[in-house]
Amino acid sequence: MARSDRELLVGLNLIPQLTPKRTNRLFARFDSFRAIWDAPGSAFASLFGSAVVGEAIASARSEEAIDDEFAKAEELEVQIVTLVDEAYPALLREIDDPPMALYVRGNLPVDPARSIGIVGTRRSTRYGKMVAGRFASRLALKGLTIVSGLAAGIDTAAHQGVLDVGGRTVAVLGCGLDYPYPKKNQPMLAQLVERGVALSEYPLGTRPAKWTFPQRNRILAGLSRGVVVVQAPERSGSLITARLALEQGREVFAVPGNITTITSAGTNRLIKSGAKLVETIDDVLVEFPDLWGQEDAAAEQATKRAPELAERERTVYDLIGLEPVHVDDIIARADLSPTEASHVLLLLQLEDLIDEVEGGRFIRKP
Amino acid sequence: MARSDRELLVGLNLIPQLTPKRTNRLFARFDSFRAIWDAPGSAFASLFGSAVVGEAIASARSEEAIDDEFAKAEELEVQIVTLVDEAYPALLREIDDPPMALYVRGNLPVDPARSIGIVGTRRSTRYGKMVAGRFASRLALKGLTIVSGLAAGIDTAAHQGVLDVGGRTVAVLGCGLDYPYPKKNQPMLAQLVERGVALSEYPLGTRPAKWTFPQRNRILAGLSRGVVVVQAPERSGSLITARLALEQGREVFAVPGNITTITSAGTNRLIKSGAKLVETIDDVLVEFPDLWGQEDAAAEQATKRAPELAERERTVYDLIGLEPVHVDDIIARADLSPTEASHVLLLLQLEDLIDEVEGGRFIRKP
Repeated sequence: MARSDRELLVGLNLIPQLTPKRTNRLFARFDSFRAIWDAPGSAFASLFGSAVVGEAIASARSEEAIDDEFAKAEELEVQIVTLVDEAYPALLREIDDPPMALYVRGNLPVDPARSIGIVGTRRSTRYGKMVAGRFASRLALKGLTIVSGLAAGIDTAAHQGVLDVGGRTVAVLGCGLDYPYPKKNQPMLAQLVERGVALSEYPLGTRPAKWTFPQRNRILAGLSRGVVVVQAPERSGSLITARLALEQGREVFAVPGNITTITSAGTNRLIKSGAKLVETIDDVLVEFPDLWGQEDAAAEQATKRAPELAERERTVYDLIGLEPVHVDDIIARADLSPTEASHVLLLLQLEDLIDEVEGGRFIRKP
Repeated sequence: MARSDRELLVGLNLIPQLTPKRTNRLFARFDSFRAIWDAPGSAFASLFGSAVVGEAIASARSEEAIDDEFAKAEELEVQIVTLVDEAYPALLREIDDPPMALYVRGNLPVDPARSIGIVGTRRSTRYGKMVAGRFASRLALKGLTIVSGLAAGIDTAAHQGVLDVGGRTVAVLGCGLDYPYPKKNQPMLAQLVERGVALSEYPLGTRPAKWTFPQRNRILAGLSRGVVVVQAPERSGSLITARLALEQGREVFAVPGNITTITSAGTNRLIKSGAKLVETIDDVLVEFPDLWGQEDAAAEQATKRAPELAERERTVYDLIGLEPVHVDDIIARADLSPTEASHVLLLLQLEDLIDEVEGGRFIRKP
């Protein structure tokens, strides 16, 4: 039976020895995917300088495995998008070592040209999570898609920030799409694929491993116009993402933080090395003039939400002056529940009308 | 009686209408200080485009006032250093509008070539004060002089950081040297002049005013190789100092901070505009290779202090690993008083062996 390129790519992608770098070299050497599929082990051996590796690759090719994988995908309602498919994200195809296949749950297409990555450490602080969530909400309200890695900490805050405002977010996993990792984020993942997308280059069933996360990061960067690193210690996967983003010609943004916080050492270092310091989403948007048009749509959406909240917002806003006011005082004076108050405060912040200063106090923006 | 240039400069400096900018123009127009002293009011009137100003300047010249000022200075043990005196700081002479005279208490000479300014907002947070104090201590231990403005907040922390390690610091005042402002800092000022210097361009008895502080800032910048802005809101005198420093060709450094803190908005903005982000004093020192020689002297000094503390330091250091340890646990396990513990922790930080992370927890530096 004559296999399509699409099937062959899925088959090649099942071979663990074919790392992204090796795949890249294969594609440079061979004229067609069929030629790779039919090549003798010695061809791989000479290309990768190892008879063992060559033989392993050759013997791992399996027609049966291809059929099994497609069957499994169908059963799990997972779509497979390969390099030769139209649904393959255009900007991702341009990176040095694009994945051969993407396993996808949720709503295609993924358009990197309208996406921003938001990443950071798992061991984030309240500050980092707040900033990640706020940036994600605001960028999503501007009509942009937020790409992140579903990890604990910053990634979670970013995805959640998008979900909070009903936006679209893409989770790039470091394991098979059916592997429940991180366990804690499975409910969020289910919610995320309703409007957004979860994807992975790893065959179904692949367990997360130390090497899958840095490898995954090149896809995360490749699926974004730019990457915002919110919080990262000095040695951190997020810095790998930043480096990969730079190598791929993407913009790298970093949120500064107190120099006494180890979780900001990486972002401060990035800024020192030339990453753009970001304080607001405008610092991100200004780099992508072609995305400004989205603003009208977002503004329209915001207007639709406004009437329902206008009165409470006004009440709270009037309580906040140029001197910091504590959230407890706002709750007391506005006669709101803590939940209502934080919702209104978040909205006022999203609308750039107020700012949170230290210790839960708020001030009016001039 | 023939007045010396020195006396004439003090006399001209007593005239409130002679602002730094006007003085600058006077010096460009006239050939000698004597010529200025003897000029008719009409000469000033035409130069400054105002008959009233011209007459005010002319009639404010007073031989008696000169004698009185020198007498007062002698009584208060204040030295006067004018533009024509050898003790006038060389780098300060190079700025566009150097002060005609400096009133000085403490130990001359002031050598801007070995000085770093540390400035910031009065309304600083604990973070800002900690960083200012730590930077000041460390730079002072390297043999550098720290210049600041004796204001509350960051300035106070910077001066105090120097005093804590027995270093040398210069306070540039925005009022007459005998005017007790800020009141709260008078004891520190007394301590400061024992090893360092307090100075002002304002005649004795001058009260602080809104305009004296920005004017003072040009001297602060002029007396430094570079200025470190530790914490500043968006509109802030510290940003004026930074601008003046840039205009004077000095280096400007800024400490980043959380974007949610209004007191870091100014420093983050400075970094965005090109100021160098500093995390450690090495980020400052690297810009001034000619100052590196000081390190040996400082290291020697540090060695002298070490024996006395070595055992307690070692005990505390051994308790701190790569996972954050809370200060309370350190106190308990090292069997130290809180005061002893914080002293040892400060020293270990100054020696770059440990770092404080959020909430009073410490980690070992890799």
